[in-house]
Amino acid sequence: MFSFTITHQETNCNARTGIIQTSHGSLKTPAFIPVATQATIKALSSEQLGEIGFEAALCNTYHLYLQPGENIVEKCGGLHGFMNFNKPLFTDSGGFQVFSLNNLFCKVDDDKVTFTSHIDNSKHIFTPEKSMQIQRKLGADMIFAFDQCLDINADYETTKKSLERTHEWELRSLKEFQKLNKDKKQALYGIVQGGRFTELREESAKYIASLPFDGMSIGSIFGDPKEESKNLVEHAIQFLPHDKPLHMLGIGSVDDLFTYVELGADTFDCVLPTRLARMGYAFIGPESGGNIQNKFRMKITKATYKEDLSPLDKNCTCSVCTNYSNAYLYHLYKAKELLFYSLMTFHNLHFFARLMEEIRQSIESDTFKELKKKWIN
Amino acid sequence: MFSFTITHQETNCNARTGIIQTSHGSLKTPAFIPVATQATIKALSSEQLGEIGFEAALCNTYHLYLQPGENIVEKCGGLHGFMNFNKPLFTDSGGFQVFSLNNLFCKVDDDKVTFTSHIDNSKHIFTPEKSMQIQRKLGADMIFAFDQCLDINADYETTKKSLERTHEWELRSLKEFQKLNKDKKQALYGIVQGGRFTELREESAKYIASLPFDGMSIGSIFGDPKEESKNLVEHAIQFLPHDKPLHMLGIGSVDDLFTYVELGADTFDCVLPTRLARMGYAFIGPESGGNIQNKFRMKITKATYKEDLSPLDKNCTCSVCTNYSNAYLYHLYKAKELLFYSLMTFHNLHFFARLMEEIRQSIESDTFKELKKKWIN
Repeated sequence: MFSFTITHQETNCNARTGIIQTSHGSLKTPAFIPVATQATIKALSSEQLGEIGFEAALCNTYHLYLQPGENIVEKCGGLHGFMNFNKPLFTDSGGFQVFSLNNLFCKVDDDKVTFTSHIDNSKHIFTPEKSMQIQRKLGADMIFAFDQCLDINADYETTKKSLERTHEWELRSLKEFQKLNKDKKQALYGIVQGGRFTELREESAKYIASLPFDGMSIGSIFGDPKEESKNLVEHAIQFLPHDKPLHMLGIGSVDDLFTYVELGADTFDCVLPTRLARMGYAFIGPESGGNIQNKFRMKITKATYKEDLSPLDKNCTCSVCTNYSNAYLYHLYKAKELLFYSLMTFHNLHFFARLMEEIRQSIESDTFKELKKKWIN
Repeated sequence: MFSFTITHQETNCNARTGIIQTSHGSLKTPAFIPVATQATIKALSSEQLGEIGFEAALCNTYHLYLQPGENIVEKCGGLHGFMNFNKPLFTDSGGFQVFSLNNLFCKVDDDKVTFTSHIDNSKHIFTPEKSMQIQRKLGADMIFAFDQCLDINADYETTKKSLERTHEWELRSLKEFQKLNKDKKQALYGIVQGGRFTELREESAKYIASLPFDGMSIGSIFGDPKEESKNLVEHAIQFLPHDKPLHMLGIGSVDDLFTYVELGADTFDCVLPTRLARMGYAFIGPESGGNIQNKFRMKITKATYKEDLSPLDKNCTCSVCTNYSNAYLYHLYKAKELLFYSLMTFHNLHFFARLMEEIRQSIESDTFKELKKKWIN
């Protein structure tokens, strides 16, 4: 049910357009995948997400395992039925949250992770097999192998030890996945780890590339420092199979999208546009004053917008910019109105949908580098 | 710009259908008017309100005066422009909130009310003239005279004294309104008060009827005790002009809608469907188990819905009931997701829109009493 077709290779760099085909429809790449942590893009319905033009979303296994539980989601027809989203869905493996959320307790053994729930401190165990079983029940089209997300600043020895464990876990993930996925409903992505060490990233890329994963991904690249992150990814990518889709985990700033699309990445997920929306940051394009310095953002909660009749972005065609003034949005924020979160999220996701559309078009016309220059001077 | 036309008089009771015409379009009556306190129906956009089929909304003058202030709203094209709602709008006079909100301080003199803001305790003064000036700037199509909302349980002497003051304030409201409204853009509604005393309600109805208000309304009828409230309204209505629209302030329970439509009321505003939605109550019709005992409500936050694949109301055609299960809504509630408030509000307002449509159709076919019997046994 899963396939990836490269539809155009940019002539001036490694950027490419493609189509990921799943049993829930197709996805044009490069694509930004908004994060629906608890089976909802916070403050937006699935219908609104479709209205914006999003073709996919990524849900978090850790959260859904704890609440409502994978069995209930399965009973409701999997995530597609549960959240009424009949388009391609991703789930992550739960690994990142187990290590990154502020859990009371998290103990890593070679064969498993024992952790406490951030909701009620109850104790749970994740293994690679368990992660696969949960993700099977959640029913996303594209799922991820279970890995250990290490502090990017860990030393060489710690990183090397963690990488060996991660590789073992990914192999166990793959074996369990192959047992569960006889109907070929889902696709499994392997994850390249290796911290900040080029050598370990290379080792990881070669190992993941050697296994029959459907897709590749690169984890624990947090974008900073920019140059170091880019070099790590650039080095690793050359050892990954060119014909498999490449996902960048947790990447989503505007400049990072340009950087990694240029290197050949196909999909990205990040909470940035939705989380920043709820904090009052609106994304704006270069024609409207967005640039690398202001991170393509303006903050609507500033008092200067109190009487401002302009929209968030005068060049934006979304229904928020068409219908509502900054004065209204500022008022909703001050008045603590729920609509504030919906409107801001709608605008930001619209911004990312249009940006990716523009990027895809530029690749198809071999003008990606010009577009990048227009955005990132 | 304002007119009211009775399109059909029920042959078996005083219920009637009509059309209120304003400079922002028309409104079919009897109509339920959802409350957009701070220029937003909490958790829904104006576009979603239109999608449900609502033709009007009511905003609160007190709240908008304090935040963002009537001058900013005016600058943004009045409430219609500010909240992007190009349909008939009402504003109340601010009177109710001045007296009912938990303000630190509220002092009533014969000529004015001095009160503190519930936001920052700053001191403010409302007079009938001031209320008219604010409502003019807010720019709603239908506005209300400034009155004193007394405790419904106040004794006869207190109520009589308050009623005299209210009548004086309403006359002052009318005079100021006539000065401001030379362009006939707005319509002013007078308010019948008089507490729980039939004699005072009659006196008030006669007085309000004698003044050239565009519409009539009845205030401080809180629906309980049901029989006493109904008798007060039934008595007062006979002294009100039949050819002017009659608004019931703050009325919105299902049985009250039937009761007062039957007596000849045309419009109703109430926070009930929206506030209850946010608390987890969904309205359900008689075919789905709704009745006078359960107040036509079910509570989705009960654990019994945890794995329930049914929609809120199996006979409801709204996009929430079509697309989402109770298990999903229960999950959104437990996960404290913002989407919960939007979906629940959407369903409840859809319920009220359809109920009023059914009521209008029954009046037109002279079967209102049968419909009432079907709902209220």
